[in-house]
Amino acid sequence: MERAALLHRPDSEYAYLYEKDEFHIRLRTKRDDVKAVHVIKGDPYLIDQDKWYQESEPMIVLTQTEDFDYWFIKTSAKYRRLQYAFHVIGTDGEEVFYGDRGIFPCTEETKAGAANYFRMPYFQEVDRFKSPQWVKDTIWYQIFPERFANGNTSNDPEGTLPWGSKAPDREDFFGGDLQGVIDNLDYLVDLGINGIYFCPIFKAHSNHKYDTIDYYEIDPDFGDKKTFKTLVEEAHKRGIKIMLDAVFNHMGYHSPQWQDVIKNEEKSEYADWFHIHSYPVEFGTNGNEEGATTVSYDTFAFTPRMPKLNTANPDVQKYLLDIATYWIKEFDIDAWRLDVANEVDHNFWKLFYKETVVLKDDFYILGEIWHSSQSWLQGDEFHAVMNYAFTETIENFFVYEGILADKMISGLNEQLMLYRQQTNEVMFNMLDSHDTARLLTIAKEDKEVAKMTLAFTFLQHGQPCVYYGTEVGMTGENDPDCRKCMVWDKEEQDLVFYEFMKELIALRKENQETLTKGSLEFILSDNDRQVVGFERRTVDQVITAYFNRGNEDYVINPVDSQTIAMSQNYNKAEKAVGSKGFVIFKTK
Amino acid sequence: MERAALLHRPDSEYAYLYEKDEFHIRLRTKRDDVKAVHVIKGDPYLIDQDKWYQESEPMIVLTQTEDFDYWFIKTSAKYRRLQYAFHVIGTDGEEVFYGDRGIFPCTEETKAGAANYFRMPYFQEVDRFKSPQWVKDTIWYQIFPERFANGNTSNDPEGTLPWGSKAPDREDFFGGDLQGVIDNLDYLVDLGINGIYFCPIFKAHSNHKYDTIDYYEIDPDFGDKKTFKTLVEEAHKRGIKIMLDAVFNHMGYHSPQWQDVIKNEEKSEYADWFHIHSYPVEFGTNGNEEGATTVSYDTFAFTPRMPKLNTANPDVQKYLLDIATYWIKEFDIDAWRLDVANEVDHNFWKLFYKETVVLKDDFYILGEIWHSSQSWLQGDEFHAVMNYAFTETIENFFVYEGILADKMISGLNEQLMLYRQQTNEVMFNMLDSHDTARLLTIAKEDKEVAKMTLAFTFLQHGQPCVYYGTEVGMTGENDPDCRKCMVWDKEEQDLVFYEFMKELIALRKENQETLTKGSLEFILSDNDRQVVGFERRTVDQVITAYFNRGNEDYVINPVDSQTIAMSQNYNKAEKAVGSKGFVIFKTK
Repeated sequence: MERAALLHRPDSEYAYLYEKDEFHIRLRTKRDDVKAVHVIKGDPYLIDQDKWYQESEPMIVLTQTEDFDYWFIKTSAKYRRLQYAFHVIGTDGEEVFYGDRGIFPCTEETKAGAANYFRMPYFQEVDRFKSPQWVKDTIWYQIFPERFANGNTSNDPEGTLPWGSKAPDREDFFGGDLQGVIDNLDYLVDLGINGIYFCPIFKAHSNHKYDTIDYYEIDPDFGDKKTFKTLVEEAHKRGIKIMLDAVFNHMGYHSPQWQDVIKNEEKSEYADWFHIHSYPVEFGTNGNEEGATTVSYDTFAFTPRMPKLNTANPDVQKYLLDIATYWIKEFDIDAWRLDVANEVDHNFWKLFYKETVVLKDDFYILGEIWHSSQSWLQGDEFHAVMNYAFTETIENFFVYEGILADKMISGLNEQLMLYRQQTNEVMFNMLDSHDTARLLTIAKEDKEVAKMTLAFTFLQHGQPCVYYGTEVGMTGENDPDCRKCMVWDKEEQDLVFYEFMKELIALRKENQETLTKGSLEFILSDNDRQVVGFERRTVDQVITAYFNRGNEDYVINPVDSQTIAMSQNYNKAEKAVGSKGFVIFKTK
Repeated sequence: MERAALLHRPDSEYAYLYEKDEFHIRLRTKRDDVKAVHVIKGDPYLIDQDKWYQESEPMIVLTQTEDFDYWFIKTSAKYRRLQYAFHVIGTDGEEVFYGDRGIFPCTEETKAGAANYFRMPYFQEVDRFKSPQWVKDTIWYQIFPERFANGNTSNDPEGTLPWGSKAPDREDFFGGDLQGVIDNLDYLVDLGINGIYFCPIFKAHSNHKYDTIDYYEIDPDFGDKKTFKTLVEEAHKRGIKIMLDAVFNHMGYHSPQWQDVIKNEEKSEYADWFHIHSYPVEFGTNGNEEGATTVSYDTFAFTPRMPKLNTANPDVQKYLLDIATYWIKEFDIDAWRLDVANEVDHNFWKLFYKETVVLKDDFYILGEIWHSSQSWLQGDEFHAVMNYAFTETIENFFVYEGILADKMISGLNEQLMLYRQQTNEVMFNMLDSHDTARLLTIAKEDKEVAKMTLAFTFLQHGQPCVYYGTEVGMTGENDPDCRKCMVWDKEEQDLVFYEFMKELIALRKENQETLTKGSLEFILSDNDRQVVGFERRTVDQVITAYFNRGNEDYVINPVDSQTIAMSQNYNKAEKAVGSKGFVIFKTK
């Protein structure tokens, strides 16, 4: 057995409360290297009793990656305290005891040594990672407000271009606004959407509004607070939740705070609101060249027009937390998406979590993080992150054909094993966004590929998000091209794609229990023929799906009790999944 | 190369800010399996530039354990942001790239893929784990107040036994008090002590005072607030810091809160202060048998007289946090030791950290945790834990002779690698306490063994603590015998042991910089002859030590430039460390 591959970390995603009295334990071992694992466990204060410890039923292999097996068991504890270790049996027959002090021979003497055990000292409900129930039932739709719909031409900024008259440049305005969203809520209802993620809507300079001037004002190009209130109310009436974008990492150049710093320098009351290394800070002065890496203050990326906020400053904290709570208290929003969340300190996000969740106990907090995010997802900062690391892996197989089936499965499983089960249940899975090229474009406008990629994603752990316009076949390279005006002309919409999305969304919603909480097991992975198959399973239902990214038909062997829920290029008579085809079966 | 053994965890003890601009990176590999590791790194927002990433100098092997090598490098980042990955070269010649998405061939294509890298998104000073400077210079002394010294017989409780007249039983009182400590501060100064850890001193029922009745009162057996104020002032005058014991996991049976619950049950305003499953809660009623596992409320261990507090209740939080801050504000204490800290929730300790550290920015918080404690030591809960896991490993070699030299070194290194360097610098290393048998007793009263164990411990990472009376050769089995009255009669004191301790403490203090911050490398480990040697090193100084637990002389080869700082059973002429001997060399 490869001892050096054994891995467990107490009080982490390897050992956590899933429900109040349901404790989950994971163990990582080298792939195909271990035959069986049993948890040895007992109460830490009964160790004076003879045989205070018991061996559990065998753990199961929850998931496999290229290099690892991840073992899993759920358990509980009568006195809400647990000490536990692993009895690991290698495929070579070697048996070891793995616990808090390392690896030992699995003898009675080792087992009797209380200090050898990992500990879950007490089942703390207050520390348990809790994910909001409604998110588990949500199909998200991302709106870039300037480009979704123009519902009120009277608030169009000067120089507004006719809707969809050209491919957007970075500085263009087309007049999209909140009234446009209100006008199209029923469209979203028809599609099946029940959650909207809005890119920023507060007063800012640019069309994307990530350079905030005033967090307390709706951007006048988009409407006003009355319009936004109506939007939330109308959305809620239709069962649609509202998530806003909080840009708290940095402020805009045109904000009064930054302008005050430019003018008053050290003497500005806002001097400590930012990370300033020397004065002056205005461009063109003392080497503070715009767009260069030479400005004398910290910025978002190398964007001098976005000075980074000092969120360790209590004044800044108070300012931002007041904003965060204002929009919940006054407008009843349901969630915040946090821009560049990884570059803001943990201390601030912990305050943010406390102050928002106390107002609405099912409030949802979504961080923009593109890399592995364990330290933000411990239960007291975010509920989830924008799951780029997960969806990019899907695209690498389905869209780019850059990895083999096994590598995709491995990558997805590796991502899932970074987080607790309840975190994975509310992850935010988008295949594209305002920060990436559009799915159909990276798929070289092959709609079958785009559709099978969407279908696969909708069947995975985590909740899917549709980027506005995907449902009618919109294309676009990365920013600014992915921010084209929404196509509303039915003639130009791909209505077949729309019906497909509607069907897929309905499928997800009808089977949400299985698709959110059910187990997921890959039952087929054919690297040569680029075919994968998997099963989602609860006690009550099984959903089985096969996806063929290859060029040849692939004959499968479906279970008789299952019926076809949805398919593409599937020949039922021959049980053959065609090239770029898929089939989804379900029981019940 | 064993890929399955590669381990790194971003934003953890594997990747952290040590100083404001000094970032530490660790990597774990299988022992002796990897030839070299380089960090590949760059700024996350320069990835569009050609060759945005650079390879570092080679990492060093910081430490080895039975199964692993731990690699280390310190680095920084011009823009306070870092993305990094590892170029790992196996002893078999295999080269891989290991990063955020797993293991890949180490090609230019892999290196160019920004998503493949781990991230330290921004150097957040507010999140950095900070350890108080003064603790790095502290030699602790633990006092069990009822048994240290009786300075005021007028506050002796009824039935007080003559000092030291018998071995203590669990219910005995001998009259120890705070005046007794004040009277002996100069004794501690002579010994070299500069920090006292007091077991509880608040009003309680028992002699150990872990069953608190009133956290706002000094136990009348021990004195009053005036006495305590004098004690702190007199200690501070002598450069001695004061740490009190906060018993916040549970309360005492005799507390007014618990008595109110017994009486008023559900109607008590304190009903939600505890974890009660059904009423009545008084012993002898409805199966609430004392001492049994059948009481209908959660307790410390199975001690029904110590009902567990519900620290998730905001009223309880307020109550306990007011206490925590009261003793700092009013009495200027320097540290809290937290009893049964692992069984109280993280949420509470994070509040505790904030509210105490804000009052005194070098306040020290020490948790009682006997197992691995990463999740409490992230920088926003405790500064350190009582390092039983570390010191037990030392005892297993030196005292019990239960493990080989290699296993001890492995165990110590494994513990060190659980925490950041700045955490290890303030760890609390005690070889015994009121909760264990005394060192000299477990050493079967072999003073040479006890002394070499102390000397070894004093040279390790972390700050040593002397349990009262160790310095004069006191013995005692576990509770209650380890809580005997302090021996003050010079005739009964082992004055040779006292001089040894004084010398050892002086050695530690004189070389505190090297012993706290210096590297530690084991240069000798002889399993057969039970000998170990190691080096502590800074730029300015080297301390080298050899310890021989075996039965035969062991000839060493000291460097000429070093002089003997301290020794036991060392034959200088023959350069031979005798059985149960040690020698400590130093430069300068």
